Amino acid sequence: MNHKPFIIVVSAPSGAGKTTILKEVRRLVSGVFYSVSATTRPPRPGEVDGVDYIFVTKKEFERMIESGDLLEWAKVFGGEYYGTPKSPVIKALEAGMDVLMDLDIQGKESLEAMYDGSIISIFLLPPSFEELRRRLNGRKTENESELQERLSRAKVELKWAENYQYWVISSLIDEAAKGIVSIINAERMRRERVIFNLDID
Amino acid sequence: MNHKPFIIVVSAPSGAGKTTILKEVRRLVSGVFYSVSATTRPPRPGEVDGVDYIFVTKKEFERMIESGDLLEWAKVFGGEYYGTPKSPVIKALEAGMDVLMDLDIQGKESLEAMYDGSIISIFLLPPSFEELRRRLNGRKTENESELQERLSRAKVELKWAENYQYWVISSLIDEAAKGIVSIINAERMRRERVIFNLDID
Repeated sequence: MNHKPFIIVVSAPSGAGKTTILKEVRRLVSGVFYSVSATTRPPRPGEVDGVDYIFVTKKEFERMIESGDLLEWAKVFGGEYYGTPKSPVIKALEAGMDVLMDLDIQGKESLEAMYDGSIISIFLLPPSFEELRRRLNGRKTENESELQERLSRAKVELKWAENYQYWVISSLIDEAAKGIVSIINAERMRRERVIFNLDID
Repeated sequence: MNHKPFIIVVSAPSGAGKTTILKEVRRLVSGVFYSVSATTRPPRPGEVDGVDYIFVTKKEFERMIESGDLLEWAKVFGGEYYGTPKSPVIKALEAGMDVLMDLDIQGKESLEAMYDGSIISIFLLPPSFEELRRRLNGRKTENESELQERLSRAKVELKWAENYQYWVISSLIDEAAKGIVSIINAERMRRERVIFNLDID
């Protein structure tokens, strides 16, 4: 069944397991293009340029803004830029693919402000705040002050969950991934998106 | 994940395979109560009272209307009554179950007019009008004039598909059933339905 393609934005407080869940979603669903964000922040250990992010300099990022190469962009607290390269997304949509975006709350807000096409927004909720704290502790990539900062940022982010269309609880990776896949499948069957010609007469 | 329960209405032109598809949906999904309609029309061969329909006399049906025992009802072309007994549906919703209803277009319209709770509407589309004709022919339960009547009714019904929120194509029973299950799962994750308390602070 053909449908008019759309953008799916997934956001989560850090520690909700978003990266793992989205990898599983991409494995389970076809016809979805995964948009890789551009950023000026330095790569973290293990991050691959072009896969996790497109890592660029501030100068390059500002040139992309000026040339209109970004679908949305934002300068986050701390001064780093994050943005979505426009051309891969537009090409995928034109080819009839839906586009999956892993954006933070600010990115989702700027997308909604700058893009007037169809956007489905999903917020991944941690099962509880205690569980979120436990997960962030288990990560061991941050020192105590960074952990505290992440926790208080998570609290602020959770208040933004109200602005998302769907809530998926990330207690189990598999369940959460299947939940997102169900949402994508259901949105493809919305009457206004279905492309269907029932040769009557 | 808990959610505020809702009613799912599925309609289809006859010959779209609705009965078989809904049986498969009920097998695949949990937490769904299947609503059995009441009718005054006589049972067809193989139909079981209380399973396919609750078969009642006109007098009994009219008493149910007067007593307010029906969530919705309609008198169809031909003079027979169809309606949805109210109490099983309300009890299921109060128990946190979603309610699946197999209604014709008139039933769905009267439900929307008489019930002000949350309703999800799904229309099952035959893959093509030719396929619909082929399926109705294959049924062999009708004579030629009945077949012609069903076909022209199907044409009228298809024009009503615009008033449904979702379109599911019934080319393959399994695919169509999985599609409906995805819709139910996705609707359970809509922000306004999710019951969630994230013990922050």
